[in-house]
Amino acid sequence: MNILPKAVLHVIESFERLPGIGPKTAQRLAFYLLHIPQADLDRFSDHIKVLKVNTVLCDVCKNVTEEAPCQICGDPRRDHTIICLVEQPTDVLSIEKTRAFNGVYHVLHGIIDPLNNIGPDEIYIADLLKRIRQQKPAVEELIIAVNSTMEGEATAMYIQKQIGKSGIKITRLAHGIPIGGDIEYADEVTLKRALEGRRVY
Amino acid sequence: MNILPKAVLHVIESFERLPGIGPKTAQRLAFYLLHIPQADLDRFSDHIKVLKVNTVLCDVCKNVTEEAPCQICGDPRRDHTIICLVEQPTDVLSIEKTRAFNGVYHVLHGIIDPLNNIGPDEIYIADLLKRIRQQKPAVEELIIAVNSTMEGEATAMYIQKQIGKSGIKITRLAHGIPIGGDIEYADEVTLKRALEGRRVY
Repeated sequence: MNILPKAVLHVIESFERLPGIGPKTAQRLAFYLLHIPQADLDRFSDHIKVLKVNTVLCDVCKNVTEEAPCQICGDPRRDHTIICLVEQPTDVLSIEKTRAFNGVYHVLHGIIDPLNNIGPDEIYIADLLKRIRQQKPAVEELIIAVNSTMEGEATAMYIQKQIGKSGIKITRLAHGIPIGGDIEYADEVTLKRALEGRRVY
Repeated sequence: MNILPKAVLHVIESFERLPGIGPKTAQRLAFYLLHIPQADLDRFSDHIKVLKVNTVLCDVCKNVTEEAPCQICGDPRRDHTIICLVEQPTDVLSIEKTRAFNGVYHVLHGIIDPLNNIGPDEIYIADLLKRIRQQKPAVEELIIAVNSTMEGEATAMYIQKQIGKSGIKITRLAHGIPIGGDIEYADEVTLKRALEGRRVY
């Protein structure tokens, strides 16, 4: 016998499908929603319903946007000769927050991951290659800013191979000790990269 | 300049209002939802919209239910002479999971908390007292199963005072070392309660 009302159960089940939300959290969220005004529930509900309807992928960089081209690709003050390649739209947000990058982006929406059946054709690599071939002004630098996982490294290698002889400068983000990080507690690979990448004061 | 589409921003804001969900998690959830089929979004959206519409409070025990009286209050096989008093509907779920209680419940939907302007009239205490006065068969035991916080203790005291002379047995959950817990690491108050509440083998 389940003593939970179906309406509550359905909301719990919906929350449980979200990443990082377990049964206890889903239950807590559903019961929390029982206490908020119906108008707020309606607004929450409507926002979810139109989330995908009111967004598109930018036809240039594949970032999520209200209308194509996105604000960044449509901005003449940005340097369109430098493309920063990221895995996810959230990575664009993180890099934009630094205010340290004035180029443009290309969002792969994933990473090459053979174990999960994700090959080059499942992510926006072909679009990147085509963009590099056709873009005016020509692309001069591609910053590969994918995560430094096995899959990230494999994807970076694949892309390097594809555009290797085009004369485009291919760079990657620096690895090293995070600011405020403790040398004593840094892992060996990070410390090795920090040494290799050391810079003159 | 905010580069996030409004539709995404709205969903992030909705998630951020939920307890225990910070800006980063809200962002991660919103971008996750961009990848699921519209049909699933519609279902999620609909479930939230009808959550409150399709639930009521049981007119006997004030638990959240599909229709009043709730399944527990309407069950003749349960012992209606023992009422277990809890703060929240989720506490009912936790106690039901033990399968160790065959009585009925009363849900306060809160706790007396003067610092947050919650007095006895803001929670379902009057309904409990009326229920105790009027219920047939008469209530014989009230198990006070509120949390052992300052507010919980104050609420327990208040209720004891209100029904003190009615001859009803008032009990509380046992405090002590949790199963699997380590005596060495138990706090003093818990250990003191465990000693006071010691039982013959």
